[in-house]
Amino acid sequence: MPEFITRKSEDFSEWYTDVILKAELADYAPVKGCMVIRPYGYALWENIQRILDGYLKETGHVNAYFPLFIPWSFLEREKAHVQGFAPEVAVVTRAGDRELEEPLVVRPTSETIMYAMYAKWIRSYRDLPILINQWNNVVRWELRTRLFLRTTEFLWQEGHTAHATYEEAEAEALKILGIYKKFIEQDLAIPVIAGVKPESEKFAGAFRTYTVEAMMGDRKALQAGTSHNLGQNFAQAFDVKFQDRDGQWKYAWQTSWGVSTRLIGALVMVHGDDHGLFLPPRVAPIQVVIVPIWKTDEERQQVLVAAQSIAESLRNLQIRVHVDDRDYETVGYKFNDWELRGVPLRVELGPRDLARRQALVVPRGEAKTPVSMDALADHIQAELSRIQQMLFQRARAFMESNTFTLDDYAEFARRIETYGGFYRLRWCEQATCEQKIREETKATLRCLPLNAPNEPGPCVVCSAPSRYRYVVARAY
Amino acid sequence: MPEFITRKSEDFSEWYTDVILKAELADYAPVKGCMVIRPYGYALWENIQRILDGYLKETGHVNAYFPLFIPWSFLEREKAHVQGFAPEVAVVTRAGDRELEEPLVVRPTSETIMYAMYAKWIRSYRDLPILINQWNNVVRWELRTRLFLRTTEFLWQEGHTAHATYEEAEAEALKILGIYKKFIEQDLAIPVIAGVKPESEKFAGAFRTYTVEAMMGDRKALQAGTSHNLGQNFAQAFDVKFQDRDGQWKYAWQTSWGVSTRLIGALVMVHGDDHGLFLPPRVAPIQVVIVPIWKTDEERQQVLVAAQSIAESLRNLQIRVHVDDRDYETVGYKFNDWELRGVPLRVELGPRDLARRQALVVPRGEAKTPVSMDALADHIQAELSRIQQMLFQRARAFMESNTFTLDDYAEFARRIETYGGFYRLRWCEQATCEQKIREETKATLRCLPLNAPNEPGPCVVCSAPSRYRYVVARAY
Repeated sequence: MPEFITRKSEDFSEWYTDVILKAELADYAPVKGCMVIRPYGYALWENIQRILDGYLKETGHVNAYFPLFIPWSFLEREKAHVQGFAPEVAVVTRAGDRELEEPLVVRPTSETIMYAMYAKWIRSYRDLPILINQWNNVVRWELRTRLFLRTTEFLWQEGHTAHATYEEAEAEALKILGIYKKFIEQDLAIPVIAGVKPESEKFAGAFRTYTVEAMMGDRKALQAGTSHNLGQNFAQAFDVKFQDRDGQWKYAWQTSWGVSTRLIGALVMVHGDDHGLFLPPRVAPIQVVIVPIWKTDEERQQVLVAAQSIAESLRNLQIRVHVDDRDYETVGYKFNDWELRGVPLRVELGPRDLARRQALVVPRGEAKTPVSMDALADHIQAELSRIQQMLFQRARAFMESNTFTLDDYAEFARRIETYGGFYRLRWCEQATCEQKIREETKATLRCLPLNAPNEPGPCVVCSAPSRYRYVVARAY
Repeated sequence: MPEFITRKSEDFSEWYTDVILKAELADYAPVKGCMVIRPYGYALWENIQRILDGYLKETGHVNAYFPLFIPWSFLEREKAHVQGFAPEVAVVTRAGDRELEEPLVVRPTSETIMYAMYAKWIRSYRDLPILINQWNNVVRWELRTRLFLRTTEFLWQEGHTAHATYEEAEAEALKILGIYKKFIEQDLAIPVIAGVKPESEKFAGAFRTYTVEAMMGDRKALQAGTSHNLGQNFAQAFDVKFQDRDGQWKYAWQTSWGVSTRLIGALVMVHGDDHGLFLPPRVAPIQVVIVPIWKTDEERQQVLVAAQSIAESLRNLQIRVHVDDRDYETVGYKFNDWELRGVPLRVELGPRDLARRQALVVPRGEAKTPVSMDALADHIQAELSRIQQMLFQRARAFMESNTFTLDDYAEFARRIETYGGFYRLRWCEQATCEQKIREETKATLRCLPLNAPNEPGPCVVCSAPSRYRYVVARAY
């Protein structure tokens, strides 16, 4: 294994940063808390965007773009919203050499600026639903930052919809939650628990917040995406009204929802190992790397021609392939390098392979298999599909084997301290019990899973009668 | 024609704003100088992005993302650069309730923040070339703003490359200029003049600036894209150095280049007419609108089924098609509405057409043609291609017929005042003559066209010997 990466088992946090820097996903920027997303990391984000954007458009959503700057007074209109965001907003007070009359907030999220426009655009029930999404950058001034997981600026998509009825808004929030779950599980190969947040963890200004929670390699939770039923809170604050079929003017019902570049952090932490990244084929910028092997110039010429020809035939099947023709690195270096970068499949091609009309196919972390040239393209397609499934099943088995159902608070507190993991605990839904858990164990109530079975019994903290088991974990 | 749009011939500027607002490309934001790009306008931008991004990737460029915020001290490192941008930057001085130690500039362009990273990444000639592009938002505090053409915040792509030699950097700047010309002419159907900017019009910090200039419907010029050979100006300011094959450490040679959402303004001003937008098929969000016509419910059912079936067959050919099934608008309203939105082809489908197994095809602004169902898809594909060509040729004829070769300064001054247009004028390359033109006629030296023929003669202003004719025009 490359010596310059900290072992995952030794220091998960150091390992995480090492992998991101060495695989060139991102780098620290010379501005506090900001990062640069390097081309390899950005290609991953482009694949995430392309696939998720497709799912959103299939379901009738359209993209738009709203301004970066929000007048301070807008932020203040929804009370819970400004309380939540005021401590972490960056503020523009000057332009050129002039002080601004009203300070402008660099958007931490766009509810307020968007709904001010919705109020202008919406007149009739015929104007509904509005199903707008945008892909953009947002800024939240964070004191403790970590690459991809928590940075001052990050990239995301934020969807904002308006509907005529509560039922439609609730259905939309759940539809999006389903899209997120499908996307994260099928394309990122990361199993998630979809559920509803307790009151204390709701989005600032939401009526109800849904979440998809994933388990990272250190058994901590990551909130991978959220979908909010905003009720009429913002509609009332921004006067988003429509005239209904019955002639009455009514406030719209709204939702907002988003996933961000932190999904890249999740990919690292769920699939990575001591050798580096392991990227699921569906989003890997390079799905197949061909490493030609030669000694003489004549051999070099032959294997490069053959490698390019294989690459061409794979590209015709829409497979993302790269030929590593660097002549200043050793073959061993190249193998390590592409493992570090998480390329799911390596194809080795030397003069002897050419003579036998075969290539060696090496799924990342597995043994070599000689495959005849005629069968190569089919074999590779099948392998990519197998690896995608394998990664998901492996991650799901990991999550399941590290999720525990407990009724003893002391045991929970001891185990989460030493081992981490997800705990299914009964909770009475009182804030005091939630607070005790947070303060004593640093764990939070991640969510009540959708369709959680009724499991009546005593609250794990206070023994009061409780109906459901919440998922409790330490989280990023 | 829709009465609510100002006539183009009456007030071009009012017409421009009317079209953008009424066609719902964009709207004014409640923040000074900012706009909202509405879904229809953003779909246009997505098509622009998709096509141009493809051309950039085909030529080896990769995307990345650098921070929104730039430390003030970075901006100051390249002297001409800070002079150019300081008067128009928005500055973040506060985060939460804390004053920042060093104010942060909201990027007006990203040379400084990117090259600080390049200096860290580049060590060897093997690390070159770096061919990075990013699609992002930038902010320039403008006093007089206009939708798409000049807004405080706008969207663009900015490419930034680093090379081992001057020759490579110069070739790159010209290659990009060629890509811009091809894209704007082939895909946006807007003819451009590619040339080099005079010294006074160079980008702040550039060694040489190339430009593509287009003629708008009011015969004014619009700078549609620029490509800068930066020389070693920024490399020296940011210490972007590499060890060459010969073992010596050398400064890199750099380029930067960009096009922005102002291209959407160009599309409006080049192709639009009294009826509204006219979008070239290659970038039109909707290429074909099907308007079903019915009186009875039974007819409605029949024509809608047929319309959806046609739409489906067109979608299979990758044609972007929309069925206007609104039952609360008249057919006449729909016709006007889609003309306003610039959809290049309309298909009308009524019960009588169904009975004859035909549809009426109406290229925007032309006569109806009945086309049999069997031939419909082929006919539509051919028509879209014809319209794309027609728009380009019409715009080229307009530009050519409004470009004049003159040697008399007084005549030029009189004609540009009353008529506008492009003027091919000899210029001695002295700043004083350039200044006189600008001050007396409000026109600027747009560029010296690439491969301009040697046409020696007297400078149009001072009569000093001159070699070339520059293109002179009033500009946006």
